[in-house]
Amino acid sequence: PAELPDMNDPLIDHSEGQLFLNEAFKIIIEEVLCKGTDVKQKVCEWKEPGELAQLLDFELRAAGEPQQRLLQRVKDVAKYSIKTSHPRFFNQLFAGVDYHALAGRFLSEALNTNLYTYEVAPVFVLMETEVLRSLRQLVGWTEGDGIFCPGGSTSNMFAMNLARYQLFPEVKSQGLWAVPRLSIFTSAESHYSVKKGAAYLGIGTDNIVVVKVDEGGRIIPEDLEQKIELTKSQGAVPLLVSCTSGTTVRGAFDPLDRIADVCERHNVWMHVDAAWGGSVLFSEQHRHLMKGVARANSVAWNPHKLLMAGLQCSALLLQDTTNLLKKCHSANATYLFQQDKCYDVNLDVGDKTVQCSRKDDCLKLWLMWKAVGSIGLAARVDKAFNLVRYLVEQMRKREGFHLLWEPEFLNVCFWFIPPSMRGKEGNADYQDRLANVAPVIKERMIKQGTMMVGYQPLGDKVNFFRMIVISTLVSKDDMDFFLDEIERLGNDL
Amino acid sequence: PAELPDMNDPLIDHSEGQLFLNEAFKIIIEEVLCKGTDVKQKVCEWKEPGELAQLLDFELRAAGEPQQRLLQRVKDVAKYSIKTSHPRFFNQLFAGVDYHALAGRFLSEALNTNLYTYEVAPVFVLMETEVLRSLRQLVGWTEGDGIFCPGGSTSNMFAMNLARYQLFPEVKSQGLWAVPRLSIFTSAESHYSVKKGAAYLGIGTDNIVVVKVDEGGRIIPEDLEQKIELTKSQGAVPLLVSCTSGTTVRGAFDPLDRIADVCERHNVWMHVDAAWGGSVLFSEQHRHLMKGVARANSVAWNPHKLLMAGLQCSALLLQDTTNLLKKCHSANATYLFQQDKCYDVNLDVGDKTVQCSRKDDCLKLWLMWKAVGSIGLAARVDKAFNLVRYLVEQMRKREGFHLLWEPEFLNVCFWFIPPSMRGKEGNADYQDRLANVAPVIKERMIKQGTMMVGYQPLGDKVNFFRMIVISTLVSKDDMDFFLDEIERLGNDL
Ligand SMILES: Cc1ncc(COP(=O)(O)O)c(C=O)c1O
Ligand SMILES: Cc1ncc(COP(=O)(O)O)c(C=O)c1O
Repeated sequence: PAELPDMNDPLIDHSEGQLFLNEAFKIIIEEVLCKGTDVKQKVCEWKEPGELAQLLDFELRAAGEPQQRLLQRVKDVAKYSIKTSHPRFFNQLFAGVDYHALAGRFLSEALNTNLYTYEVAPVFVLMETEVLRSLRQLVGWTEGDGIFCPGGSTSNMFAMNLARYQLFPEVKSQGLWAVPRLSIFTSAESHYSVKKGAAYLGIGTDNIVVVKVDEGGRIIPEDLEQKIELTKSQGAVPLLVSCTSGTTVRGAFDPLDRIADVCERHNVWMHVDAAWGGSVLFSEQHRHLMKGVARANSVAWNPHKLLMAGLQCSALLLQDTTNLLKKCHSANATYLFQQDKCYDVNLDVGDKTVQCSRKDDCLKLWLMWKAVGSIGLAARVDKAFNLVRYLVEQMRKREGFHLLWEPEFLNVCFWFIPPSMRGKEGNADYQDRLANVAPVIKERMIKQGTMMVGYQPLGDKVNFFRMIVISTLVSKDDMDFFLDEIERLGNDL
Repeated sequence: PAELPDMNDPLIDHSEGQLFLNEAFKIIIEEVLCKGTDVKQKVCEWKEPGELAQLLDFELRAAGEPQQRLLQRVKDVAKYSIKTSHPRFFNQLFAGVDYHALAGRFLSEALNTNLYTYEVAPVFVLMETEVLRSLRQLVGWTEGDGIFCPGGSTSNMFAMNLARYQLFPEVKSQGLWAVPRLSIFTSAESHYSVKKGAAYLGIGTDNIVVVKVDEGGRIIPEDLEQKIELTKSQGAVPLLVSCTSGTTVRGAFDPLDRIADVCERHNVWMHVDAAWGGSVLFSEQHRHLMKGVARANSVAWNPHKLLMAGLQCSALLLQDTTNLLKKCHSANATYLFQQDKCYDVNLDVGDKTVQCSRKDDCLKLWLMWKAVGSIGLAARVDKAFNLVRYLVEQMRKREGFHLLWEPEFLNVCFWFIPPSMRGKEGNADYQDRLANVAPVIKERMIKQGTMMVGYQPLGDKVNFFRMIVISTLVSKDDMDFFLDEIERLGNDL
């Protein structure tokens, strides 16, 4: 046979590689972590897509590039990316930076392992178990199960799949054709992943029954019960109620205790989507918002949102002690989950999920929690509530800010009414003009890069801002700035 | 109202935090990247679960801990984790480290953004588009669509959901009850995510039709065609054929061209699970293994495996130009995907997936590709093939190594026959004894920490080793060491 080419060439020069990583690390510290959290810097450096594509030269080619060029690329990616850790980034349900969590994330990336077997992830198998146990304890469960998922959407979908399997285990092998039509109950204000899940799992979005909410956006348990009964009378089987603790737009908390009563009466799986709100469980002062959560069957909770653990960090928690998660999701692949290993194969947790590769998302949360303790995490939650209270007080003192609802959580939903529109509520074009205010202010805001905040319509309410407070970096000054800036950007409209 | 507590306390000291990150970075370089890739160090520091739990003190408490203690924790996590970048980690379908990719991963973590809107991820929306385009080009498509998913399992499931939606769009709203029974065709050697997907999507594992393979583990197109016809005659609708390019255990490549003929004749969606094998497309020498791939409807490809991009990096590529991905997965949430934005809302790619939060997994691949070019990536693929050829040649020269199949790819499947068993194939207990060899060698190996390699049974073959070559760090010496070490650990059995 022909001589084989040089097989000892490592292709990658490890000391040069580490040097590069060192330089890249410095850029990250400087551009992302120093400038990116500096209130005097911009939140974003807006570019039109065409211009950005030119600036960044995304094209991939046959030949590689010199190290200096690549470091410049690292710098450019940082420069033109949104600074989500900036104290004036109020745009999403995540923000801020925690350095211990970030250290954990760097460590995860460097270790580059998969959380499926004890063999390949001994530390993380045990760590995940403990983190899940601690989260369950806050829910109020001394026993149970759980798993970290790539996002709250997946956590919500797993809950649906578990509820389905518990009711009709044959669905796993025979498919939905073998079982009666299933219905999922949730409010119109729940997260869209409930819809996506119903479609993806083959249940269909038409089989979501929309439950009415009260004026605060909370499920009305009486309506839930009526709809469950109606559904049954129509021959479908009520599968799951997906309640929300902290709805995406309004931040509403569904009344869990009263929903639990209904679920118990009708023997329906109670799922709590606490992706956003779950972290109130750390706070003595605010955990009452989730009173009754211990009666749920499952809880989805994203520490990457309010706790600032970093994307992604989402836990699905279960009260179940019958190994439902594994029974429902397992495929028993013998190449990965051999049964003749030299350790307890129950430590091979990978078959509890529908994923194969799975990241050790527990590490960032664990390290952060070790660093500040439950007390430190509670302080973050409480601080955010206080800032919101302050913001609302200030808003009330200014003309032109119209709060849509009294915030129950950290979502402050409001219209800004420019001076030219004040007192003109009766005009025929008022709603159309109002609908246009937020998009225009938003456009000006991102083009100037001073801050970021989201807006949306909801039901019959035209576009309004949804201000979200998360990051511990945020101060009273930032709240005042926020109001000033909305005025500055919108006063001429 | 009562005075609000101090709201200007940032709770997190940023300069102290950055100092911590700096120290953690040094530990990562030293413990994970220097020691972890040093052939003279151990691949793993085995501990029994109970002992490891004691050593690492996982419990989460009310109070935080001092920085020095936390740095020690970083060190300990690194110390007791498996060194997946070690040149003698042959255990999984991922291994090795690429420093440019790793720099991209650190940058992703620091930027902490979500790839759903242009507004919040301008750089990554454009970058993902370009990376997908480049990957599609290698498949042979000048147009198309795609998305990065949290793992190849998800990519495979998306393909199923797309095929289903294309055939019966009403399934999204009405569920599977509205459509006839669907069948999925794949071989018994395809990845278990096909099974998990069928269960999760509500189709059911019984509706997977197992297609026969030839002696090399490749789908037999004639059997596929017969089974499609049989299925039709039984009233089910053939939904999708899931072929594999690089099967998990054997590394077999299904004959795509001939399968495409069958799929075209019967109008069935052709999916190629190239999670493991896809990277051969970079190599002029080896891309013939996937001849015909351009005729597929979808391809799943994990650059986190052979290309060493780092977990996770998995692309689903589509030939479709009708926006099927978005139509199938979208929920049109107005709070995130507003239609009245100041830029082209087609750039808000987030509704193409069932996720909400989604990581910018494209960055690590992009930076690595920029660094070494397609030529550099091809060299990695070719090097791994050459090492495998060398390993097999050496294996043939030694007594006791029994190759189960001629490797088509980078999976070398073999039995080690200890001296005491040689020539005793006729003995009644031979198979039982043989089945026990790999687990015992594996146990000794991990307890001594010298290397890691996987084993499994397959069909009527009892436990055999599956040796995988990926990392560019691997040398001929490591191949020789591998064989020596198997002998050293197993010669007394
Ligand atoms: C209430 C709620 N549930 C679920 C999710 C989805 O979580 P993820 O983005 O992690 O998929 C969100 C996201 O914002 C949410 O607000
Ligand atoms: C052929 C094949 N397909 C799919 C997968 C699943 O990929 P992931 O682990 O990224 O989910 C694997 C994993 O090893 C595989 O070997």
